[in-house]
Amino acid sequence: MTTYLNGVSLPPSKRVSIFGGTHGNEMTGVTLVRQWIKNGAEVQRAGVLVTPFIANPKAVERRVRYIDQDLNRAFTPEILSLVERKDLPCEVKQAQEINRLFGPKGSKDAYDVIFDLHNTTSNMGCTFILENSGDDFILQMVNYIKCTLGQSSCHVLLNEHPELKYETTRSVAKHAVGLEVGPQPQGVIRSDILKSTRQILKYALDFIQLFNKGEEFAACDLEVYVLDASVDYPRDQHGDISAMIHPHLQDRDWQPLCPGDAIFLTFDGKTIYYEGEGTVYPTFINEAAYYEKHRAFVTTRKKVLPAKGVKIRTV
Amino acid sequence: MTTYLNGVSLPPSKRVSIFGGTHGNEMTGVTLVRQWIKNGAEVQRAGVLVTPFIANPKAVERRVRYIDQDLNRAFTPEILSLVERKDLPCEVKQAQEINRLFGPKGSKDAYDVIFDLHNTTSNMGCTFILENSGDDFILQMVNYIKCTLGQSSCHVLLNEHPELKYETTRSVAKHAVGLEVGPQPQGVIRSDILKSTRQILKYALDFIQLFNKGEEFAACDLEVYVLDASVDYPRDQHGDISAMIHPHLQDRDWQPLCPGDAIFLTFDGKTIYYEGEGTVYPTFINEAAYYEKHRAFVTTRKKVLPAKGVKIRTV
Repeated sequence: MTTYLNGVSLPPSKRVSIFGGTHGNEMTGVTLVRQWIKNGAEVQRAGVLVTPFIANPKAVERRVRYIDQDLNRAFTPEILSLVERKDLPCEVKQAQEINRLFGPKGSKDAYDVIFDLHNTTSNMGCTFILENSGDDFILQMVNYIKCTLGQSSCHVLLNEHPELKYETTRSVAKHAVGLEVGPQPQGVIRSDILKSTRQILKYALDFIQLFNKGEEFAACDLEVYVLDASVDYPRDQHGDISAMIHPHLQDRDWQPLCPGDAIFLTFDGKTIYYEGEGTVYPTFINEAAYYEKHRAFVTTRKKVLPAKGVKIRTV
Repeated sequence: MTTYLNGVSLPPSKRVSIFGGTHGNEMTGVTLVRQWIKNGAEVQRAGVLVTPFIANPKAVERRVRYIDQDLNRAFTPEILSLVERKDLPCEVKQAQEINRLFGPKGSKDAYDVIFDLHNTTSNMGCTFILENSGDDFILQMVNYIKCTLGQSSCHVLLNEHPELKYETTRSVAKHAVGLEVGPQPQGVIRSDILKSTRQILKYALDFIQLFNKGEEFAACDLEVYVLDASVDYPRDQHGDISAMIHPHLQDRDWQPLCPGDAIFLTFDGKTIYYEGEGTVYPTFINEAAYYEKHRAFVTTRKKVLPAKGVKIRTV
């Protein structure tokens, strides 16, 4: 990275991968990546190696989120450095394999960009999940896509939370971006969700090509939702869930939630109200995969993030 | 069964069971039945033994449809008569256990009624699934519920198809009724779906109580959708799915489908049209659990089914 008057100059992005099936029952990425492995014309761009990749083939085959543990939490230094053994959990082996193919994580040899395609049962629409507010390249890419599609077309969730951030599959690359599109049930392919994902990927690859060709992207502001807290379901004395998402909150991802608003409805009909401080923007509301993670929804706070201008570094 | 001038007289329904978790990831039934096991006041009715029951506890625990095979296809004479052995598939053992507790299937000792609570990812609303057009007791119950809730509130799917009918968990009882409510993703509890299911169950139990008390239900006509055919996804030469439900068909369960209407969209953008004969009413459109059953949707034909009057048989 080199700074210039209006921003930073960065090396070209020559190696890009599109991951589907990090979670084996999130079918949009699985379906698109399988198609692109058969015929990659749609995702090829001049001067860029674009590699579509099924991240967890065993989970995909069984149409489950994972076999032994969540692959999308497995890219910690501890797991990546475990000594190879036959009896390692499926996703530990797979994380190490991905790190070999697309990393090593944090090294100069790592892939430039990984897009990781996800689905959610929540009514989140198209959401970019970012892990690094200082990654101007990704911020500019997202801004480009939002401007091309229309500003209200997608949301940006920024997870730099000290306790809630996790080590994602895509974190192997220099620039990582997750795309979470919903609502779509696990195991289902919906044409509308597939179309949105495909369109966003197209513009993301267009951005990379334009950047590589020398186009300069001027400094900009990006509206992001900063991950704030995780809210669990109410539970009884045995630890069992005793309430569900309130009908007033269900499907209202990204809508303002204020203290005193209904969030849960107990199975015997009592309403539970939000008691946090100030207005928040809930998302991942009633995500199927998060019941086991003791998460009914997360709260976020809105923020405008400045992105520096970016252009290619010409040596 | 005894006939009288306007219908048939039947013995009282004294033993009724409500099954949840025949499929372990269909959460409405699982949630309601668990509540009613803790506190059954809501489902108790004078003079009736009402037993809430988790049908496949191991699948429920792992939040999957089934462990070894689909429990809701396991109630064949062959499976029910298999000699007990330790290594029988989980659902074979469970089917035999259910047959011991609530059957034996086809015998006079069997439970009078089993309600089996299901969810679907399809946009089916509330759907009764019936297996016997000659079961006037169930037809009258459904008519009572429809009249109480409003005629357009739910649909009735009749499956007597020679090839597509299967041996359900509830088939152990003398009178069997499946309740399929959606759309709800697997593994998710939606408050709106839970509320609808709960309301239908209330009226179903009210009907039983009224019947037992001597109320006579006059002959009536019931609109049903008769299961006609199962339609698979288009596939490539390797047997892999090559198309998805067309956006014009997605979520349009129970809407008329005519020859020439779009049904699939291939992953490379071609529309495939319906080529069947005459107008049909598709349902179970894009049900997650049916991908493995090679079923994209089923077609039905509308029919008006006459139900005889019913009243209790007083000996």
